[in-house]
Amino acid sequence: MAFQTRITELLHTEYPIIQGGMAWVADYHIASAVSNAGGVGLIAAGSAPADFVREQIHKVRELTDKPFGVNIMLMSPHAADIAQVVLEEKVPVVTTGAGNPGKYIPDWKAAGITVIPVIASVSQAIRMERVGADAVVAEGCEAGGHIGELTTMALTPQIVDAVSIPVLTAGGVADGRGIAAAFMLGAEGVQVGTRFLAAEECNIHPNYKQAVLDCKDIGTTVTGRTTGSPVRCIKNKLAREIVAMEKDVKADKEEMEKMLTGSLRAAVVDGDDKMGSLMAGQVAGMVHKIQPAAEIIKEMFAEAAQVLAGAQKLLAD
Amino acid sequence: MAFQTRITELLHTEYPIIQGGMAWVADYHIASAVSNAGGVGLIAAGSAPADFVREQIHKVRELTDKPFGVNIMLMSPHAADIAQVVLEEKVPVVTTGAGNPGKYIPDWKAAGITVIPVIASVSQAIRMERVGADAVVAEGCEAGGHIGELTTMALTPQIVDAVSIPVLTAGGVADGRGIAAAFMLGAEGVQVGTRFLAAEECNIHPNYKQAVLDCKDIGTTVTGRTTGSPVRCIKNKLAREIVAMEKDVKADKEEMEKMLTGSLRAAVVDGDDKMGSLMAGQVAGMVHKIQPAAEIIKEMFAEAAQVLAGAQKLLAD
Repeated sequence: MAFQTRITELLHTEYPIIQGGMAWVADYHIASAVSNAGGVGLIAAGSAPADFVREQIHKVRELTDKPFGVNIMLMSPHAADIAQVVLEEKVPVVTTGAGNPGKYIPDWKAAGITVIPVIASVSQAIRMERVGADAVVAEGCEAGGHIGELTTMALTPQIVDAVSIPVLTAGGVADGRGIAAAFMLGAEGVQVGTRFLAAEECNIHPNYKQAVLDCKDIGTTVTGRTTGSPVRCIKNKLAREIVAMEKDVKADKEEMEKMLTGSLRAAVVDGDDKMGSLMAGQVAGMVHKIQPAAEIIKEMFAEAAQVLAGAQKLLAD
Repeated sequence: MAFQTRITELLHTEYPIIQGGMAWVADYHIASAVSNAGGVGLIAAGSAPADFVREQIHKVRELTDKPFGVNIMLMSPHAADIAQVVLEEKVPVVTTGAGNPGKYIPDWKAAGITVIPVIASVSQAIRMERVGADAVVAEGCEAGGHIGELTTMALTPQIVDAVSIPVLTAGGVADGRGIAAAFMLGAEGVQVGTRFLAAEECNIHPNYKQAVLDCKDIGTTVTGRTTGSPVRCIKNKLAREIVAMEKDVKADKEEMEKMLTGSLRAAVVDGDDKMGSLMAGQVAGMVHKIQPAAEIIKEMFAEAAQVLAGAQKLLAD
């Protein structure tokens, strides 16, 4: 089997790919589709209450018997409850963001859960390895949603050099070329978000999906750089106004916060493509059609295999 | 010969590598060393007068008979004069930044000069192909110095899809893994800046060189994001103060401009590692030693070959 790495061993999957834990977006529909297709589908807990997450877990299990996971946003007020739910439900894979999951890891590991924190710097990766993480997702700032500072090209090899657990690359991976590049940088798997926004099984409002398909290379921007909470999203009325307010010395920062509150829900659920936060990565410009998740995964790895096989041409003497 | 691409054909070099056109940094010392080592060394014209650039060209020619180039910063007040100098001197390769070199290209091409603009978006690349560029350097925002918005992982494949001329990747390439990744993304060559800051032949002040060697993964930042002239540099007193002023509604923007004026020269020439602008890319964290340029190039491509050959393991059935 091609593409067998320490990540496929760890995840018990056909392909070394995890679907991104996109808040509001990643529900049981897309998660079960990705898992059935040979990757790991994630339910994003986001700021949702624990009962909602438990319900989502049950729904995934109705649709697949393959490995799946839950992404826990550790700054959520419900994080501790959700940590307990994934334990009780023995969710196969847990990814975490926005904090240190160290205190939960011993119990999770004892329950056989594979723990993969999402990190954005060398010091975070080293800390996660020390508290017992099985792998890390190194997420570059080309990714959609909440981001760090380092790009995938700069981050991945520095993380690979710093830890001995396997590394997945996130950010900038929308096709087989991105997968092949991630492997060359030393990653053993990838996490993909933006491309799955255009999956048939992705349950976002059609307006959001269309905005991703229409997005060009320079079609995303970062809101919240000045407030310490940078988020990459597609340039629309909301994003342009926020970015302008951030540069404006006289802008009302409370007004800004008010505009952002609920804006992701407005995009995903209501399809507000003007004042909703259309979170997406810089590779949105490479996403051109709506496809089943299984087709996306097959296509990406077939292309990765082709690109990697072509490498021989470069080595010819 | 390994690594023969349309870029090595175009440049008449052993390796598909160009040294970055770093203003104040890239003089005849490093340029001739890189050219002698089988890449294309560049003299950066920056804001220097035409006579200075002519003198540098003569000095490179005393030290090498291999292909070399000049990087022209098109916003320089001396750009038109320098465009004439490279024509008169029949410089083999010209790279350009910060503008559209279209009006110079017919004369340059008639003189046999290879023209390679540095670009940061799809529309710029398409425009450059249309005005007759031979190739483009797609520069990701992980690079040092003046940067755009897109990262290398997101930018390179989108440029490759948009133009039929060959593409070089810049930003995020400091070792063989970066070269291999760039090729997987569809590039046929690379431009490397930061790693050459640590070349023996790089004529920057030892304090600047030491700051690059000491830099960690999160050791760079971007000044000027709010003023429309973003520059990546190593976090020091200057960078921290500028970034703080950019977030401060009461900060004096003229004072900020004054602090930045001459700050690159202060870093390169005077070795002011506190108030000088220590321009460097996010891969500075991967640069650990001072080496001759020839050793850097040999090492990078040997590693790239090794990494690419290892790809076969991933494809094994």
